[in-house]
Amino acid sequence: MTHTPAHTRMSAADLEALPSRSRAHLVNLCSGIKGLHLLGSRSKSGQDNLAPFNSVLHIGASPAALGVLFRPITVRRDSYRNIQETGYFTLNLVSRPMLDAAHHASAKWAADESEFSATGLTPLDNGFPAPHVAESPLSIGLRLVEEQHIRFNDTRLLIGAVEEVLLPVDSLPEGGWMRLDEHDILSVAGLDSYYQGRLVARKAYAQTDAAPPDLVRDRD
Amino acid sequence: MTHTPAHTRMSAADLEALPSRSRAHLVNLCSGIKGLHLLGSRSKSGQDNLAPFNSVLHIGASPAALGVLFRPITVRRDSYRNIQETGYFTLNLVSRPMLDAAHHASAKWAADESEFSATGLTPLDNGFPAPHVAESPLSIGLRLVEEQHIRFNDTRLLIGAVEEVLLPVDSLPEGGWMRLDEHDILSVAGLDSYYQGRLVARKAYAQTDAAPPDLVRDRD
Repeated sequence: MTHTPAHTRMSAADLEALPSRSRAHLVNLCSGIKGLHLLGSRSKSGQDNLAPFNSVLHIGASPAALGVLFRPITVRRDSYRNIQETGYFTLNLVSRPMLDAAHHASAKWAADESEFSATGLTPLDNGFPAPHVAESPLSIGLRLVEEQHIRFNDTRLLIGAVEEVLLPVDSLPEGGWMRLDEHDILSVAGLDSYYQGRLVARKAYAQTDAAPPDLVRDRD
Repeated sequence: MTHTPAHTRMSAADLEALPSRSRAHLVNLCSGIKGLHLLGSRSKSGQDNLAPFNSVLHIGASPAALGVLFRPITVRRDSYRNIQETGYFTLNLVSRPMLDAAHHASAKWAADESEFSATGLTPLDNGFPAPHVAESPLSIGLRLVEEQHIRFNDTRLLIGAVEEVLLPVDSLPEGGWMRLDEHDILSVAGLDSYYQGRLVARKAYAQTDAAPPDLVRDRD
């Protein structure tokens, strides 16, 4: 139906033979242009922490829950430790004006340094046990409800139940739907590349009898 | 540092009070503009199956692995059953020319109907035990290595080790990096909305001493 590109095949052995950084770049491309969040947490002693994650997973809508994958705990992981200590965290969608600060938050800051002060982002304290990011157009407060240990590579999937959602006040979604590109939401691909998404189509619920029509369609 | 939007707060109770479809739309927005894949699988009897997924997770680069979250198995789930039967599946990034076909593949086709024939996408049979999608610019062949049962809502995370990656022949990534927007890769947000991402910046590895410079930057 559409153009069929010619492909080159890389086997698992070809991937393992790559330099470590090249392999990391390439394998990270396989999950596509994906969601980007800043994870906010607070230590038992009250130190705020902020770190970018590209491994947030929709778990379910009722009850509402999201998951976050954590690398093996072989180095200091402030976010993971804080969530274990307090049981709470926030996930904050990243908009384009936040790009440089969000990336800078990924540097190895000392445990007693706040990424908020370091990057200029603003903690929003509304009483929730973890800090929201005031600049984020869509921020979610979560409570840890489950942890899965992935034996294959010793990573951990933390499941958080949604306790609160902070939405832009001027765009309460009708029927739960809103255009995320009106808020300049960013995505990420690979290890270091940020993409801005533009809506190309909203489709009607798919039926087998006819191709589903567009509810919204941008020009091709 | 940047504009701080005014927010409206919705609690977990506010979310539960929404009509089911509105809640599903809204909670699906919380994971952002995220990756979109067609999952290819083959039944024991040789019937090919194709279904869109927005719940693919990068698990690790060495060994290379991806995860896919499956809804509770309360209705017929051909993809899940096929993977259990054969132990193999493919994940295929979706490009813009594939949009209508990819969405149509989400309709409730009968178990003996192939979504390939129904939507016009082309199975690429290179000997792998599950069909790749020939039109996809980046297609991954995976072997099931682990299953996690998420007790919170009875969903299942299937972990697949990457056995092969099919890349566009004219764009072998240098240092493992390539621009996904040159292949018109789509993302998805909410239940039914497709976004096209454009690279806005590739950033240098973040250090604490100075704001990381751009390796590539599009104009704002």
